[in-house]
Amino acid sequence: MTSIATSEYSPVVQSFIPLLYVAWADGMLSPSEVSIIQKEIEALPEISSEDKALLLDWTDPAEWPDDQTFKEWMSLLKDISVDTDYATIDSIVELGLVMADRAGGKDHPRYMKEETRAALSKLEKTLHIPGLAKFRAIHPPVGPKEFRHLFDPAKLQALQDGDNSEIINRLKKLLADPLFEISPIRAKEAYRDRVLDWLTKLAAQGYGALGYPKEYGGEDDIIKYAAVFETLAYFDLSLAVKFGVQFGLFGGSVHQLGTKKHHDLYLKDAGSAKLLGCFAMTETGHGSNVRDLETTATYKPDTDTLIINSPSEAAGKEYIGNALHCQIASVFAQLIVNGESQGVHAILVPIRGENGSLLPGRRVEDNGYKMGLNGVDNGKIWFDQVEVPRTNLLDRFGTITPEGNYQSQIAKPSKRFFTMLGTLVAGRICVAKGALSAAKVSLHIATKYALKRRQFGPDNQQEQLIMDYPSHQKRLIPRIAKSYATHFMLDELVKMYAHRDESSIREVETLAAGVKAYATWFATDTIQTCREACGGKGYLWENRFADLKADSDIFTTFEGDNTVLMQLVSKGLLSSFKQEFSDSGFMGSIRYLANQVSDSFLTINPMYKRKTDADHLLDHRFHLHAFQYRERRILFALGSRMREMFKKRITPYDVFIRTQNHMISLAKAFIERKILEHFIQTLDSIEDTDVKEFMERIYQLFALDTIESNKGWYLEHDYVEGVKTKAIRRQVERLCSELRPHVSLLVEGYGIPKSMVSAPIAI
Amino acid sequence: MTSIATSEYSPVVQSFIPLLYVAWADGMLSPSEVSIIQKEIEALPEISSEDKALLLDWTDPAEWPDDQTFKEWMSLLKDISVDTDYATIDSIVELGLVMADRAGGKDHPRYMKEETRAALSKLEKTLHIPGLAKFRAIHPPVGPKEFRHLFDPAKLQALQDGDNSEIINRLKKLLADPLFEISPIRAKEAYRDRVLDWLTKLAAQGYGALGYPKEYGGEDDIIKYAAVFETLAYFDLSLAVKFGVQFGLFGGSVHQLGTKKHHDLYLKDAGSAKLLGCFAMTETGHGSNVRDLETTATYKPDTDTLIINSPSEAAGKEYIGNALHCQIASVFAQLIVNGESQGVHAILVPIRGENGSLLPGRRVEDNGYKMGLNGVDNGKIWFDQVEVPRTNLLDRFGTITPEGNYQSQIAKPSKRFFTMLGTLVAGRICVAKGALSAAKVSLHIATKYALKRRQFGPDNQQEQLIMDYPSHQKRLIPRIAKSYATHFMLDELVKMYAHRDESSIREVETLAAGVKAYATWFATDTIQTCREACGGKGYLWENRFADLKADSDIFTTFEGDNTVLMQLVSKGLLSSFKQEFSDSGFMGSIRYLANQVSDSFLTINPMYKRKTDADHLLDHRFHLHAFQYRERRILFALGSRMREMFKKRITPYDVFIRTQNHMISLAKAFIERKILEHFIQTLDSIEDTDVKEFMERIYQLFALDTIESNKGWYLEHDYVEGVKTKAIRRQVERLCSELRPHVSLLVEGYGIPKSMVSAPIAI
Repeated sequence: MTSIATSEYSPVVQSFIPLLYVAWADGMLSPSEVSIIQKEIEALPEISSEDKALLLDWTDPAEWPDDQTFKEWMSLLKDISVDTDYATIDSIVELGLVMADRAGGKDHPRYMKEETRAALSKLEKTLHIPGLAKFRAIHPPVGPKEFRHLFDPAKLQALQDGDNSEIINRLKKLLADPLFEISPIRAKEAYRDRVLDWLTKLAAQGYGALGYPKEYGGEDDIIKYAAVFETLAYFDLSLAVKFGVQFGLFGGSVHQLGTKKHHDLYLKDAGSAKLLGCFAMTETGHGSNVRDLETTATYKPDTDTLIINSPSEAAGKEYIGNALHCQIASVFAQLIVNGESQGVHAILVPIRGENGSLLPGRRVEDNGYKMGLNGVDNGKIWFDQVEVPRTNLLDRFGTITPEGNYQSQIAKPSKRFFTMLGTLVAGRICVAKGALSAAKVSLHIATKYALKRRQFGPDNQQEQLIMDYPSHQKRLIPRIAKSYATHFMLDELVKMYAHRDESSIREVETLAAGVKAYATWFATDTIQTCREACGGKGYLWENRFADLKADSDIFTTFEGDNTVLMQLVSKGLLSSFKQEFSDSGFMGSIRYLANQVSDSFLTINPMYKRKTDADHLLDHRFHLHAFQYRERRILFALGSRMREMFKKRITPYDVFIRTQNHMISLAKAFIERKILEHFIQTLDSIEDTDVKEFMERIYQLFALDTIESNKGWYLEHDYVEGVKTKAIRRQVERLCSELRPHVSLLVEGYGIPKSMVSAPIAI
Repeated sequence: MTSIATSEYSPVVQSFIPLLYVAWADGMLSPSEVSIIQKEIEALPEISSEDKALLLDWTDPAEWPDDQTFKEWMSLLKDISVDTDYATIDSIVELGLVMADRAGGKDHPRYMKEETRAALSKLEKTLHIPGLAKFRAIHPPVGPKEFRHLFDPAKLQALQDGDNSEIINRLKKLLADPLFEISPIRAKEAYRDRVLDWLTKLAAQGYGALGYPKEYGGEDDIIKYAAVFETLAYFDLSLAVKFGVQFGLFGGSVHQLGTKKHHDLYLKDAGSAKLLGCFAMTETGHGSNVRDLETTATYKPDTDTLIINSPSEAAGKEYIGNALHCQIASVFAQLIVNGESQGVHAILVPIRGENGSLLPGRRVEDNGYKMGLNGVDNGKIWFDQVEVPRTNLLDRFGTITPEGNYQSQIAKPSKRFFTMLGTLVAGRICVAKGALSAAKVSLHIATKYALKRRQFGPDNQQEQLIMDYPSHQKRLIPRIAKSYATHFMLDELVKMYAHRDESSIREVETLAAGVKAYATWFATDTIQTCREACGGKGYLWENRFADLKADSDIFTTFEGDNTVLMQLVSKGLLSSFKQEFSDSGFMGSIRYLANQVSDSFLTINPMYKRKTDADHLLDHRFHLHAFQYRERRILFALGSRMREMFKKRITPYDVFIRTQNHMISLAKAFIERKILEHFIQTLDSIEDTDVKEFMERIYQLFALDTIESNKGWYLEHDYVEGVKTKAIRRQVERLCSELRPHVSLLVEGYGIPKSMVSAPIAI
């Protein structure tokens, strides 16, 4: 009692003490929170100016309450416990009112109990203070009130689905049918049969042909096709891959590389899955290096046919999806006409006859069990002098005339080759989308689990949700932000692809290669992290990670090995300065580059390096500058290094080999910069202000987390000082804790139906 | 011809030009290489002092040949091609001699062709210059000649196997029996049967009982037991885990927690696998937080029995290995005697009767398919008021007297609890060893594949081995170095555990927790990287990564979740300053800490931050200082932060929650420092000088790669400047390229028999 007697604080001031104590205790009262508190204080009726000044002083963000004040609060709070049963007080508000009462509130002329209660209650809710037992840091603080339950997840879903929501929802409905059930089928044969059955069902509903012209049963809509692929990937990646092989790769090769005669003959049946086909490009001996494939297709004038041949065991086609089910294959081979090689072309080669048995000269072997995707029938195919009509050449970009001469509008063999490979671009975008879907399912499951799993806690109290551990937040929330960032980029990329033309195709290809690598590495990392975040439960098959991990693992390899793709991206960036890649041409582009990047660009203002205020750290301009700076500086350094090497007459091939790691860094910086810029554009286009403000935080987290991941580089290149990287880390942690109350909204915003999440721990 | 006429270089000088051109071309001539070249030049007979000075000048490491010189060399080399067929010259040496001849060598008084040839040949071999077609960077340079084929892999294997080589070799022989064959068994039931059969075979040969006392069929040798576990993990992780569950966890609990009566009754049968048992600790509701398990064991005085009960569904034991095969279980439960809880104790509870059917009151459910380890029968177990004799309590550390009173020599419940958990320590060490074995198998496979897989290459030449890509070297070689570092640490840890006593047990437990997390994260990362490095081939089941990845994935979770373990490590470090962890006690330790770390420790000499010479970067003292500095500085910062929080009267629990990420960083720094220090000790103990010098490079790579991985931290804390981190990166790349010719030796040094590697791509 004594200390209360000595305390000269008025009732209203005392009523605020518990709340302020809790609010300050974690030392992280944000400016926006402070302004909310101060607004409530200002609005209190009858408060004396001294009291108001005192309370405002205690909430001055520039100056923490000093130790003395803090001790005083603590001792007042302790005194309360002498004759009050804490257990009967169920909130900070009630505690404050008890203190006010004990300080003579009832008799105090200016103390308005109900108004004070209203003000405190409002603050308690807004600041999300949960009770006496735990401090705010445990149930971490939330930001401005705009963040709380102001919109439902459907708004986030709409933001992602965009124009495709109708077809996405229709497909989700189909996949909710009991026929599509997630279950462990261990034997590959049974699993493949099921996937084939699923594929046929999808085709029957028109999903397969979406990307083909209307006259062949399609809608000429590659954007919808990609949305379908993305949605299938929530459910079963074997099905998604089989779907991609049949309609995207095989059908796509007929569509993109063939001419009307091929379309008329095959496209409708490809789209309806009546004609099963495979895309026979990769060989055992040649995966990444497609240009040097060994299979030959030699034109034989007397029979007007092409002879398809695998000259060696290693020249066999390998990992070919649909190899065991297909009737026909698009075979990539060195086309030889009149003894002259014209480079890699695709030729349609029947594999099986009507009765399903192999045609002569073909040999097919099962690739056996794989890490995952065991619902896809991957196999090896060899050809022994197989004869097909000349017209089976998919001849949009290069043909053999009836007279037996090779003809192409694209004179340059290397350009012809890259044009042929263009069929892979849509595949790469779809693989990236599929990987992202797998990552989203994982994040959904891990987040939902973290919101019900409790482990450890303060003595004699309920255990704590693992979502409330800062370490757990750091594992999941930045990855959720990254999933949104990647989603927006991919949607943009699909649109760019759909509307590509001669002038943009190069850019689309570079971007597709880079984003494919980025998204698939992201998925690999995220699924792993989510599995670990779910502990033993995450290891059980029923909780999905087993298949998500195993099925998606090959995504970093197929449709282009990520490491190779990243080098391709960098070559694209370097050559965009000059189209030619010959020795001298390249030197020219490097010189050009050197002129572009002036010294002044490389010099960073010392003040800037140490700028740590939140306004600056959360500013788009800071992020843009940091991302762009990194990319340009790596580009410049790489260019300079290459120039030195060329000077010493090192061959271009060797220069690229020696700068491999450097090129991969450049590609990463480029892709991250593109994703950031596109995120900013996306923010600009959001009309709903609640959603916009919310997404702004997601964006900030993505931006700062990416900078933090690269802090070694930024510090090494003297772009920031340690004090700034530390401030960035704190901001990342703060954003995680601000977004903590909204994680459920964030993962529900993916819009993955329960049947497709399926994991018991997430239900 | 003209330019040769204008060249005034003597024949001997000209003979060196091709070699010098190639050697300088990659700009990375190392001081040791330079000294070799200079030694040969010095030793040449009859060479004029002018010529000698010129050649020495051209090999001055401080100054590259200038552009003019380089152009001159180039033009001389070009002239040669006018009337010489390069194809007839098959080495740099021959080319040099041709140039000397053309410069009038035959008639030159001081030119000694044979001596020159000998000198050049020696250099060519030492510098590993492969021919004219490719520059040295492609087949990268090797270091001093001591590195080349001077010892066989058995020496490395001996270094790792140490005293255990006899038992390891015996077990390898057994596992080479056709009975132990790696094959895909998809159905869990069949796989479990096979693993059980394997287990029995191992037990029959005495492997299971190794850790038990001799009177129970063992050898009292936990070191050998760990070596067996490590070896089994090369072969099949389901078998290794089942082995660990039966002999380590179940048998280990009887051995470690029981008393003579239990040993007499059960230990022999446990070791021979006649009695199958499980270790029923984890519950669905409580995994990491073992202290709050819900299962109860209530003493009933009238029947002198213990009543085992699962009060809720979530109190069921889960993920319990051997659940479907076992006859008995060590059940961890809250022991209640006379209405008072004595904390967690282990009680032996029979599960199945003679005929294999479940005894009353027990319920067992299969955990179903898992991501991996499907050869292990994990399940859930519930107890419904199951009655067992009082003497079934494993009562080494706490007993119930016949009078029905609880008695323990360990008064403090928390200490009793941690003592009980001590059974997990050997398990953690084994898990770490198993993870490392899985990583080694992966590195072996990926390395062997990279030594035969060719892809891409200079125009019109054979494609290049992917091992020769710098990006590929960076992926594999530092991880190989890390595998050796981790191996040595683990071996030391096993020895420490075997010889533990009261004074060292705490240290052993802390180290085991940390190394378990370190090794299992390393394995997860390494297996993933190796799978990707093998592309499509890596995805095929036959090439092992599918199982290695899926089976080992749970290693980061079981026997203690890594994130939780790392926090445990940090608590151990903090509390080593003061044994008590109460609020005031902790404050005391933090104050102590603050006094320990003086300001002077935190200040780094500016010269030191920029020191980039190889002598410094490769110096043990630099590594030790960097590793120790990081640990101590993180410890200091963490301590200060905690002190601030305690000052504000934040509860100890909350303090730990808020500093989670910080604690994990500290634990990582600690473990890395321990591994480094032990690697240095290991180097000191190697007697064979060839092996020693070779391992020194592996050590250097480990040390610098670890510093590079943490460069963000070092830069942030101003320990180094960017110029130094860049130099470190170059050293890492250089070490990779120096070790490149020895990768085969390195992975063969693991001593994994072919039958256990099994992957077709590695054979």
